Parts: sequence; C-alpha cells; structure tokens
Amino acid sequence: MATHRFRPTRYHNVIGTAEPCLRIADGDTLITDTIDASGLDAREIAVANRPNPMTGPFFIEGAEAGDTLAVRIDRLTPSRATGWTYSPLATTVLEPAAMAERVPQQRVVWDIDTKAGFVKLQEPVKGLEVFAPAIEPMIGCFGVVPAGGQALSTATSAQNGGNMDYRLFGPGTTAWFPVSVPGALFYLGDGHACQGDGEIVGTGIETSFEMEVTFHVLKRKITWPRGETAEDIFTIGNARPLDQALQHATTEMSRWLGEDYGLDVRAASHLMGQVVRYDIGNVFNPAFTVACRIAKKWLTKR
Amino acid sequence: MATHRFRPTRYHNVIGTAEPCLRIADGDTLITDTIDASGLDAREIAVANRPNPMTGPFFIEGAEAGDTLAVRIDRLTPSRATGWTYSPLATTVLEPAAMAERVPQQRVVWDIDTKAGFVKLQEPVKGLEVFAPAIEPMIGCFGVVPAGGQALSTATSAQNGGNMDYRLFGPGTTAWFPVSVPGALFYLGDGHACQGDGEIVGTGIETSFEMEVTFHVLKRKITWPRGETAEDIFTIGNARPLDQALQHATTEMSRWLGEDYGLDVRAASHLMGQVVRYDIGNVFNPAFTVACRIAKKWLTKR
Amino acid sequence: MATHRFRPTRYHNVIGTAEPCLRIADGDTLITDTIDASGLDAREIAVANRPNPMTGPFFIEGAEAGDTLAVRIDRLTPSRATGWTYSPLATTVLEPAAMAERVPQQRVVWDIDTKAGFVKLQEPVKGLEVFAPAIEPMIGCFGVVPAGGQALSTATSAQNGGNMDYRLFGPGTTAWFPVSVPGALFYLGDGHACQGDGEIVGTGIETSFEMEVTFHVLKRKITWPRGETAEDIFTIGNARPLDQALQHATTEMSRWLGEDYGLDVRAASHLMGQVVRYDIGNVFNPAFTVACRIAKKWLTKR
Amino acid sequence: MATHRFRPTRYHNVIGTAEPCLRIADGDTLITDTIDASGLDAREIAVANRPNPMTGPFFIEGAEAGDTLAVRIDRLTPSRATGWTYSPLATTVLEPAAMAERVPQQRVVWDIDTKAGFVKLQEPVKGLEVFAPAIEPMIGCFGVVPAGGQALSTATSAQNGGNMDYRLFGPGTTAWFPVSVPGALFYLGDGHACQGDGEIVGTGIETSFEMEVTFHVLKRKITWPRGETAEDIFTIGNARPLDQALQHATTEMSRWLGEDYGLDVRAASHLMGQVVRYDIGNVFNPAFTVACRIAKKWLTKR
Repeated sequence: MATHRFRPTRYHNVIGTAEPCLRIADGDTLITDTIDASGLDAREIAVANRPNPMTGPFFIEGAEAGDTLAVRIDRLTPSRATGWTYSPLATTVLEPAAMAERVPQQRVVWDIDTKAGFVKLQEPVKGLEVFAPAIEPMIGCFGVVPAGGQALSTATSAQNGGNMDYRLFGPGTTAWFPVSVPGALFYLGDGHACQGDGEIVGTGIETSFEMEVTFHVLKRKITWPRGETAEDIFTIGNARPLDQALQHATTEMSRWLGEDYGLDVRAASHLMGQVVRYDIGNVFNPAFTVACRIAKKWLTKR
Repeated sequence: MATHRFRPTRYHNVIGTAEPCLRIADGDTLITDTIDASGLDAREIAVANRPNPMTGPFFIEGAEAGDTLAVRIDRLTPSRATGWTYSPLATTVLEPAAMAERVPQQRVVWDIDTKAGFVKLQEPVKGLEVFAPAIEPMIGCFGVVPAGGQALSTATSAQNGGNMDYRLFGPGTTAWFPVSVPGALFYLGDGHACQGDGEIVGTGIETSFEMEVTFHVLKRKITWPRGETAEDIFTIGNARPLDQALQHATTEMSRWLGEDYGLDVRAASHLMGQVVRYDIGNVFNPAFTVACRIAKKWLTKR
Repeated sequence: MATHRFRPTRYHNVIGTAEPCLRIADGDTLITDTIDASGLDAREIAVANRPNPMTGPFFIEGAEAGDTLAVRIDRLTPSRATGWTYSPLATTVLEPAAMAERVPQQRVVWDIDTKAGFVKLQEPVKGLEVFAPAIEPMIGCFGVVPAGGQALSTATSAQNGGNMDYRLFGPGTTAWFPVSVPGALFYLGDGHACQGDGEIVGTGIETSFEMEVTFHVLKRKITWPRGETAEDIFTIGNARPLDQALQHATTEMSRWLGEDYGLDVRAASHLMGQVVRYDIGNVFNPAFTVACRIAKKWLTKR
Repeated sequence: MATHRFRPTRYHNVIGTAEPCLRIADGDTLITDTIDASGLDAREIAVANRPNPMTGPFFIEGAEAGDTLAVRIDRLTPSRATGWTYSPLATTVLEPAAMAERVPQQRVVWDIDTKAGFVKLQEPVKGLEVFAPAIEPMIGCFGVVPAGGQALSTATSAQNGGNMDYRLFGPGTTAWFPVSVPGALFYLGDGHACQGDGEIVGTGIETSFEMEVTFHVLKRKITWPRGETAEDIFTIGNARPLDQALQHATTEMSRWLGEDYGLDVRAASHLMGQVVRYDIGNVFNPAFTVACRIAKKWLTKR
C-alpha cells in the first residue's frame, strides 16, 4: 500500500494507449499534479494545449481487459489561488430564440480562498457582490483507455470515462472504470474548484490541482462508469442527446442492482421508480453525461 | 380569503376551455378531491377514464391572459390506503439492447400508511422486504388552459403545465402558470404518494387525494411554469428530447434572475454555472419535463 | 360523386372539434379556397390570424372513429400571383456556433408565374438572378380531428396530420388520416407554391390556393398518416427529435407492408433495408415530420 | 497519374495514425481490395475482425493539415458472388412499443449477380420471391485521420468521415475529407452491393470489393465531408441525434454556397429553402449521418 508522488512533465489530449508515466501496484495511492483545462499549471504558466491536458497514463498492475478499475478520490487540493470560467450560458442550454441576445464569450477569474473554503469573482459583478459558493472540488476528466484501439479526445467521454464533468466526482467518491487494456492506463486532469450541474457555462472553476487517488483492481466486469459516495451509488451514461445518456446510466444501474443487491429487473424497477435520482454531469461536451443515483439507505448488499 | 370545498362529479382528459365547475376569488383556498391516473376514486371505484382525469376547471377571478396564476400547494392527503405502480422500467429509459429482456408490464399495489408515513409493496418482492420509502405526496398533472384555443391531452405537458410529474410539486411549493384565458381555468389531479425522478416506471404511486391549494393572481408575464419551495426557486421546460426541455427551463431561469434578482445575462450565467441544479420531472410522457433549480440562499430579491 | 364548391368565411387555428362548415358524402369532391400561413387571401387581404388558418372543418359522411379518411389531392391552383418566404435558415437547422452570424429575419416576396410554371424572387438577389424553381404546389397543413377531445395548434402536427409541410403532399397524392370522431372533421390550408425538404427557412412559398380534393372513407385502421403517389407509398411520423419521427414512420410502414403486401416483419425488413427512402417533411415546426417511402415497383398487393 | 494496385495484408478497426501501407502521389489512382464488414474476404475467409476492417492507410503526398483530400470513386466491383444482411429492423428505427414484437437477429445471404446487375435473397422468403434490387455499390466506411491524435472506431463517423453508410458514396461520386495530418492517411472498406436509406437493418448487402479511387489534394479547408455526383453537391453531418447531424450538414452547405457560388447566408437560405434535399445515410451507427444535397442545375460556379 505504497504512496507514489508523481510530477508530470508531459500531458495528453487523447485517452488512448501511450507509454505509461508510472507503474502502480493494486492498492497503492498516487499523489500527482494536474493542470487546468487550458494547460495552465500551478504557476499559471501554459505548459500544454487544449483540450483538457491529462496527467498520465498510469499503469495499474494486475488490471486486465474485462476487469474494473476502482479509483478512490482521496483529496483534491487546488494548487493555485485562482481559477477561471466562461460566460455566458452555453449554446447547448439556451432556447434557439434566446441565442440572438447572447453576449460575447468572456473569460473571468475567480479567487479560490482555500482557507475560507469558497470561491469569489475577482472583479465585482452587479448583483453578485456577495456570491461566494463553497469550494467543492471535483475531477472533470479522468478514465482509462477505451476498447478496440481507440484514442478519444479529452473533450468528450464514453464508456471508458473521460470528460464527464460530474460534480460528484469529488473527495470521498470511488469511481469505477471498465478496463480494456493491460494496466488499464489511467489518466486524470481538468479539476474544478466547483461547478453546478451541467457545466452550463462550458467550464467549472478551472484550476490546477494536487490530486490524491487510490487504485483497486476489481475482478468484475462493468459496461459504463460507476461510482460510490458516502451516501449513494451511481452509474454514468455518456452520449447525445441527454435521453440516450440517461438510458445508458439507467440500464447500468438496473444491472448493478441485480449483480450486487439481489434485485431482478422487476424488483429493481420497483425500487428505482420511487427513489431514483438523476444528475446531469454535463450538457456541454460532445457527449453529455447523466448520472443515475440511488441512496445506499435503500439497498442491502447481497 | 375564503376556503371552498368542492366535490367533483365529472372529470376531464384534456386541458382546454370548458365550463368552469367553480369560481374562486384571488386569494381564496380550494379543498377538493382528485382521482387517480386511471380514474379510481377514494373508494377505488372507476369514475372516469384515462389518461389522468382532472378535477376542474376552476375559474380564478381576476386572472386575465398575460397574467400568472400562482398556486400554493397547502396540503396533499391521500384519500385511500392503497396506490399502484407499473413495472418494469419504461422503454424511454432503457438502452435498446436491454429491451429484449424486458418483462411484461405488471400493475402492483402499495399500501399507503399515512400514520407511519411510508408506502410499502402489498405483495412481498424478493430483495424489497424492507423497502418502505416515505410518503412524499405530489401533484402529477395540473395547470391552466393553453393559448390559442388548444385543448391538450392530460397525458402530456406544455407551457401551460399539464402532466409534468415533477416530485417537487408537493406541499409547501407554489407553482406559477402563464394565464391564456380569462379566469385561467385551472385543473388538477394525478396525485402520487411518492415518485422518484423521471417517473421511470410510467407512474408514481398513483392514488386518490384530497388536495388543498390557494390561488393568487400575479400581474406579470411568464413563459414556462415556475415554482418556489422553502429552499429553492425553479423553472420548468416540457418538450422532447430532454435537451430541449432543459433549454426551455434554463432560458426561463435566466429571464427570472433578470426580472426579480437584478442579474443581467452574464451575471446570471456566473451564478447558474456554479450552483444550478437540474431535476428530471418525467422522461416518460409525450413531453419530458426538466426543472432548472437555484437555491434561494444564493439570491437577493431586488 | 358530386363536386362541392365551398367558399370559407371563417378559419381555424386549431384542429379540433368545431361546427362543420359543410357535409360531404363519401366519394365526393371538394373545391375550396385556402388562405396563406399568415392569413392573407387571394386579394392579399388579411382575413385571419396565424398560425396557418385552416378552411373547414368538413364533415365526411360515413366516417367513424377507427376508420381511415383517404384524401386524394386532385388540384392545387395558386389563387394569386405572389407568395412569400422568410430568410435566413431556421435556428433548428444551424449549428449553434453558426447562430452568432445569423442575419435578422426578413420576409421576401416571390412572383408565381403559373403560365411559365416557376417562381422567382421579386427583388433581385446577388447570385440568384436566374434562380427560378418550378411550381410544385403542396398542402402544408391538413388533417382530421385528433383523438380524445384534443384541439391541436395548426403550428404543429401529430397522428391526425396537421402542419407536416411535406412536399409530396401535392397533386396526384392520396393522403390517409386516422379518423377519431364521426365525420372525421377535415381541415386544410397553408398551401405552398414550392418548398425544399425540411421547410428550413420556416416557410415554403406561402400563398393562397384553390384546392380540389376527393374523399373516400376506408373501413380500416391506421396509426399515423399514410400516402400514395403514382410511384410510391409512404408513411409519416410527426415528433421531436427527428429520430422519433423516423421511428413512427418506419414502424407504420412495417405494419403497412404486413397488412397489404403480405410481408411479415422479417420480410419487410429485408425489403426496407435495401430500398427504403426517407424524406424530411419539416425540421422547423414544434413536431418534426419524417416520411418513410417505398417505391411501388418493389411491392405486390396481396 | 500513375495507377497503383495494392493488395492488403492487414486491416484496421480504428481510423487513426498508423504506418502507411502505400504512398500515393496527388492525382494518382489506387486499385485495392476491401473485405466485408465482418472481415470476410473475396474467398469468404475471415481475415480480420469487426467492426468494419479497413484497408489502408494510404499516404497521399502533398496533403497537409488544413487541406482537403478529394477522393473520386472510379469503380466498385464486388469481388465475390454473395453478400449478407441482418434482419429485422434495427432498434434505432422502431417505436419502443414495437420492440416487444421484434424477432431475433438473423443473418441472411444474398446472391450478387453482377452480370444481371441485381441482388437476390439466396433462400426464398414469402412475399419477396421476385424482389431483386439493382446492384448500386457504395463505400460504407472511408475517410482520413481525425484531428488531435484521435483514433476513432470504424463503427462510427465524425468530421473526418468514417462509417457514414451513405448510398451516394458510389461510382462517379467524389468525396472530400478535411485533412488533419501530413499525407491525410486515407482508409477505405465496408463496401455494400446496395443499401437503402439509413442502413436500417444495420447492414447494406455486405461483401468484399475491388475498389478503384483517384486522389486529389485541394489547398482549401472544409469542416465536414463534402461530395459531388454528376447531378448534385452534398455535405455530410455525423452526430446524434439526427437533428444535430442535419445541423452540421446544413451549416456546411451554407458555407460552401458562400465559398464557391457567391451566395451570402441570406441568398443561400433562399436557394436552400426551396430546393434542398436531405438524405439519411445511416440511423444505426453510434453517429448518425445526414446529407444535405443541392442539384447543380441551381448553381453557378463563381
């Protein structure tokens, strides 16, 4: 159960097979640095290009095609005191008729006050003088190499994870990814100091991070990413339109309830019908992300 | 501020102009009975046909085209001790590949224990022996007459409300509807003892209710339904696919933040980008429902 | 087999149950006038309001709920020498990123030269000096009363027909509609002198018409509109997104091939897989329209 | 203007950067072999795996990132006397309610009679005894390496082409692809002896081919694939849902009309609005394909 401290020197804009930057044993912990979505590091120096330059890939020993890689997010610490966002709202979330009044895209800077625990717009904006949402750090883009020799842009996401931009991928959450190649080849980056549902301005509060994660190889097969928090389990679908992303997540949850909780498809539907929650990870990227979530209080492990 | 007690004798399967069953003054409260989605009343006698037979219409005095009708949901009391749901999961929420394994549709009965405060499957189901979600009553279908002489099926929803099946339409919530005709002509029904997100089995726990609501006419114009709970404000979009429903809700919220909270579109995007929440009302009916929700703690009334 | 000449004096903006303007026997022919989508008649006088004011409803004797009304389009004669269109391209057909460069909406007038057989922009436009597409008249909006007491806006379409804006609804085509009320209650209007696929500027060349159609009541049941031209049979789906409209049309065609041409679902798929054609009626209205079309040369009536 | 005859020995299931199998000069012609979608060659021997094993990549000399590669399809000759298809209709084209009656997937063989010029089911099917559509060969999957280091599965398509399954990619058509890497790196395969719109059984008539194509490097930039036949020009959008694919194709066509035909966006909309045609390439693969097509008779090259 070693802890590895890795400092990246190169970054990746696709998630595909590449030379591992480090080999890590099953059960080990990784502490590493990530840069922001536009390639700015902790010193705000541009060290890589868009989109979402990734740290990695990490070769997880023992992971084979068909396995599942569990990644526990132990800690996400912003490594600088500012982050940035875009405005206005993305074209994907506005009625066509509202497009005409859309103002030009602008990048603004937020102060990240890790001591006080909140973020705040650096330049005052009318009506938002006291607006200071809590720092709720999350990983925007992470995952493992996809199947079949594909190399997928870090702008998008798929069964292997990627740019899901789901705010529950924060400290305390364990994310599961379906492994397609020996070693899984895990990448991570695109950290956000906070973000609402849907990433509807096209960004969270984008900044560089020191991230700490712990790996476990599970000898079981999943189809779409899954996750577990202190209170919930959830499944992820990545696709367009949102309807299809929701279908993937819902079907994966129904499978999970069967595998681990002894519910056949009819029983699973009784439970999901009354207590399911859906979250929209992103409705901005090429593939949208929907999470299907169930509180663990309703479940009994078989 | 009178309270009216109305006992319906006929029901409606479209929301359109019809003879009012009662005239109610602005500010008054209505206590009335609703029957379940399939037409069963408090005695479980079939007194009307599908889909979603409505009680109403109520003529709200003072409401004119262009106004907004605010409906505060004061109380939703199940009027019988059972409700019913369907299984399995709806075809709209499953991957096409999972359709082949879909089991036949079945109707099951739940006990509604209003004293204990939860619902429970009447016949035991393996794995759900202790499953008893809390009664969280909600109105599945309600709204006012749509514009332009339309009469819309209570199976679906639109700008005027209708079959939105959103679980936050429960006690304590005030819903706003855009008025298109004199008196607004308000309908309500399709109560659920509880329901998860998306109404993904095609039903909540369908039962008859005694409902108590209070009306206020607002001399302001809205485009899509809006709502307010103790903690949140929200806007509703009804359309297919989910993407379009979300666009309507998001655009309406951006407008609202401008009208009442002094935020221009850029400021609204800064706030929404970091703290917005999306809920999926239904992903089952002809029009899907998405709510765009903001916690009131982030907002300062102008 | 009488021919009726009807001159309308009032128009309708919803397709729903209303007082019939004329009763017509099964087998009879109707010659009537329609006004354009914005309510201008043959003299260019505004006599009704948007959207798509309809002539009708016509009560077709012998038509009962569950029947099919066949409407043969005998003749569509523009009743004035001009029509109008909008520019630029509709927001529904542009990439979001292209919205920013969208020019303001403008209405332009076209000359309709019925003698020469083409239309031409009245004011010269650079690059279109010789652009003169043929007059290929079509009915934009027609259909019968929908089921369940609904009254649907003539802006949209559904199983009962409506604003489908499909260019094959021209002379020589027979359209089938599913009947929901005694007499079917048939409406028609919104003629176009010509139109490309998709109605992508939000209009065809909108003008007033003298229309001649002949009715036959078929004692058979259909679910979605169907049609037949000299060369093809086709089915219509009306929904959003296009995917869903296509699913309705395709499923209806598979049913038709079974009913009339002796093909089971597997045989129908062999045929459709190799020779099906899809046309996009409109990708502009609230419900989009997709036609699934098969050349009659591949079919043998059972 | 040399002609190269290349016999492949290995195949590719992603379109990404790989060692070129041959270098070809701008203006040269290539004759090569392709195997069918499941990897069967001209002898019906399995020599590669699904999905859609590609021949290539071919390095086209002079092609640079930002250029366009024009590929004229000179000849597509089936290299064996049989092809295969699936039945029944794909889940993507059926109403959810029709899924329940879907029969199991089956693979059937067709005779390809190149002398007579048609295909025919090998085993008789009731109602299709005389069904023999013409051989209209087409390339299902072809294109160049995508941008940014991606390697995309040959199951899908994107801006770089790929598995578009559009029936107008046949002999006489010239296809244009946006070049992202030196040499473009062109792949081709997945030939169909014929196919209806949408590839709605999940296949055309899949067989091996000898393909002859000629390359030209154009020093101009495009965003989505384009094509030209004897009668038409067309643009391609690849995405889900169909609506988005159509938006890409339409926007690209509007650009093209500006670049080569002197039409500003308003003039382009006047022309497209009245004469545009949409074709659905596929509504089966992960990305759907829509073509936006304009007859050349309406256009005057600037």
